[in-house]
Amino acid sequence: MGQSEGQLGHQIEHGVDEGLERLERALGRAVVRDPHVLTGFVRDQAALAPAGVPAALVRARSEDDVIATLRLANAHGIPVVTRAAGTGLAGGANAIDGCIVLSVAAMDRIVGIDPLTRTAEVEPGVINGRLAAAAVEHGLFYAPDPASREISTIGGNIATNAGGSCCLKYGVTGDHVAALRAVLADGTVIRAGSITTKDVAGLDLKRLLVGSEGTLAVIVRATVRLLPVPPPASTLVAFFSSVREAAEAIVAMEARAALSLIEVMDRVTVGAVDAMTGMQLDTEAAAMVLVQSDAPNAAEVIATCERVCVDHHARDVVCSDDPEEGRMLLQARRMALPALERLGTTLLDDIAVPKPRLPEMFERAVAIGARHGLVIGTFGHAGDGNLHPTIVFDPRDEASTRAAHAAFDELVRAAVELGGTITGEHGVGTLKQRYVGWALGEAERALMQRIKRAFDPNGILNPGKGY
Amino acid sequence: MGQSEGQLGHQIEHGVDEGLERLERALGRAVVRDPHVLTGFVRDQAALAPAGVPAALVRARSEDDVIATLRLANAHGIPVVTRAAGTGLAGGANAIDGCIVLSVAAMDRIVGIDPLTRTAEVEPGVINGRLAAAAVEHGLFYAPDPASREISTIGGNIATNAGGSCCLKYGVTGDHVAALRAVLADGTVIRAGSITTKDVAGLDLKRLLVGSEGTLAVIVRATVRLLPVPPPASTLVAFFSSVREAAEAIVAMEARAALSLIEVMDRVTVGAVDAMTGMQLDTEAAAMVLVQSDAPNAAEVIATCERVCVDHHARDVVCSDDPEEGRMLLQARRMALPALERLGTTLLDDIAVPKPRLPEMFERAVAIGARHGLVIGTFGHAGDGNLHPTIVFDPRDEASTRAAHAAFDELVRAAVELGGTITGEHGVGTLKQRYVGWALGEAERALMQRIKRAFDPNGILNPGKGY
Repeated sequence: MGQSEGQLGHQIEHGVDEGLERLERALGRAVVRDPHVLTGFVRDQAALAPAGVPAALVRARSEDDVIATLRLANAHGIPVVTRAAGTGLAGGANAIDGCIVLSVAAMDRIVGIDPLTRTAEVEPGVINGRLAAAAVEHGLFYAPDPASREISTIGGNIATNAGGSCCLKYGVTGDHVAALRAVLADGTVIRAGSITTKDVAGLDLKRLLVGSEGTLAVIVRATVRLLPVPPPASTLVAFFSSVREAAEAIVAMEARAALSLIEVMDRVTVGAVDAMTGMQLDTEAAAMVLVQSDAPNAAEVIATCERVCVDHHARDVVCSDDPEEGRMLLQARRMALPALERLGTTLLDDIAVPKPRLPEMFERAVAIGARHGLVIGTFGHAGDGNLHPTIVFDPRDEASTRAAHAAFDELVRAAVELGGTITGEHGVGTLKQRYVGWALGEAERALMQRIKRAFDPNGILNPGKGY
Repeated sequence: MGQSEGQLGHQIEHGVDEGLERLERALGRAVVRDPHVLTGFVRDQAALAPAGVPAALVRARSEDDVIATLRLANAHGIPVVTRAAGTGLAGGANAIDGCIVLSVAAMDRIVGIDPLTRTAEVEPGVINGRLAAAAVEHGLFYAPDPASREISTIGGNIATNAGGSCCLKYGVTGDHVAALRAVLADGTVIRAGSITTKDVAGLDLKRLLVGSEGTLAVIVRATVRLLPVPPPASTLVAFFSSVREAAEAIVAMEARAALSLIEVMDRVTVGAVDAMTGMQLDTEAAAMVLVQSDAPNAAEVIATCERVCVDHHARDVVCSDDPEEGRMLLQARRMALPALERLGTTLLDDIAVPKPRLPEMFERAVAIGARHGLVIGTFGHAGDGNLHPTIVFDPRDEASTRAAHAAFDELVRAAVELGGTITGEHGVGTLKQRYVGWALGEAERALMQRIKRAFDPNGILNPGKGY
């Protein structure tokens, strides 16, 4: 194995230089090999995930640039890491040694918005928030709302099947993708999906591309679905003395009415947010729960939720039917990560558990933090069982760093033990490579590798990422 | 090619007998080779789709039976056609010459319903309506509602990604599948999907299995999502003098409020239903539109829809907030196919077009019927752009039969020309094999074949079906 790998390595090494030269001849200034520039394309926002040194950057301006890049990379065995804004949180867009970083950030046209079919056709580099704003001008709503929406792109959102706060009611990014156009490793263009909401002709290639983290093909065009703008949301914020009471209140609220948002923050996170913002939150509470309804009877739904929270011994409940006030109440949740980041360097986790196991997951996070002497602030999308335990540590202290990584492992392990997943919405990337075996069996991983080869026989697309 | 195929054929022929004998030894009475019994397992409900003669039937009682069957079939190169109730409408479960028909109908346990996670775990042979009824006992709702729900199984619904009337609001079957357990051609068991609503670890094998028409693996267990039982629906029925006015009213209603059902029937269908039921429908109208809302403010929504219909020159509008009355109003739509079947032998089509193209699709169906001198009744799920033009013909008359098949081709072609699909919810099966090239390009089909080989290298699972 070692010998043949060495031979292959040599063969590719030789091909790389020639391949990059051909690429420069073909694409001119779109190809950048200046190491200073390349430095900016080594990582996404998963600072602690492994990354390599790229050989070149291609700033694709068109599908043709993508095709040309992939054809040459495929012929010369050069790995290709596709990225756009690089806001990923799992290292999915981190460079691989000697790779081409293929940036589609400049492919950022909103090709069209069709109010009749309620769809938008976009290039992959379009920023989520820009599409959402353009949709509103047509009285329409692009639902997927990852926290990064003002800086992340539709292409990246699709490649990671990004979540957000809307998912409880509206589903994940993939639920809003109608059709994709993508380029395979050999430069072949494929179409997947359909503008019609029902279409059962052939295998669902679209859903296979969604969340594939750049390992199967490069998305060059997406048709996404838009919805009518929902009614203004009503909002509730409640504080509880125990995480268990908070979780029981959530279950009881959900049983009464369909909610559009259920977020949660633990005591550590509430404390950090309060210290940063001076919002005068109840820092003695074990959990803060934020709930919204954008149903036609939202005010009534939130009034019901208020009664449920009181019945479940909430320490304090605040409700508002004013959307602007609701936005301000949600601000506390939005500040969760920035507030925790003020306490030190953070290791942001992303796990999901079946909703009934949420209290146990919170308790496990507290216990893991205590065992390692680390501050762990946990917040997240309670409605989806999706939590972001965030470990605060000191990277200059070797013991603290070691403890942080051990705690990170244990948090992921706890989620799996509770019947959950190693990643709810950020992806595997390089950050969670070592946990894939906890989530997927050997048979599933082998099958996924065979599927990858069906798309990318030479294994050039983001090799070693994802699964 | 001819020679090597001949050789392969011989080799398989030889293997088949030995394989079937080994299967009988392994599974005993679960294996049936009596030709009289096999006759009942030649076809699903697509009477006119091509079908072959099976060599054996396996009545699987367990996952182990499925594994044993697939291992032997794979070793001996015997094609396997999986089926349960056989209610499919595209020949997807039709036998192939010399195949094993693998029936999972007896694997019909509801393993459990968990109100906390709002999921049900079922074997593939569970009838949809039985699961729906069991869910109601827990105050929960299994949304997918193909017209066949009282006779079709969850396994078949998943294998075809079955649609229904609920899809406008609730989505297709695949949107309600949390996780699957399936057996690959070589007997390997895989798990796909997750009980957590967010899970981005690895490729989406679950969505790939959904709608794969038995070509990738045999589903042996499904975990499906349940919802709280929605509020009682309010119903509207409206008649229009032109299909265009009906379509414009539908667009206008949808722009005002989220509806849970929008069905449509053309003049031919309304006439046939009226003749059968004596419901005193407006048989002069060009289109009958049925709308429901199960929103918390359903009565208000339907009142708004009534005003919209009047503004769009509806000839007549009937509304009801009484669920039982609503059920009776919907009865007309439920009788569409039986009523058309009384007029002669029918060829039931299943196409979908982008919603704005619905009026053109109706007009095309009328023109195609006129050109061929055939009665074509068109009805369907207008909210999804999914129509079932139903051709009435006389199978004893060769010219009529030829005309019916030509009209069927032209209906599918028209849908594709209008930006739609060759099949919205019934599947490709054998019925629509010849249209696959209209829906999928060469690159996509080649890719799907490579994906199939990743699951089923020997090509034993429902070969020649689907794509």
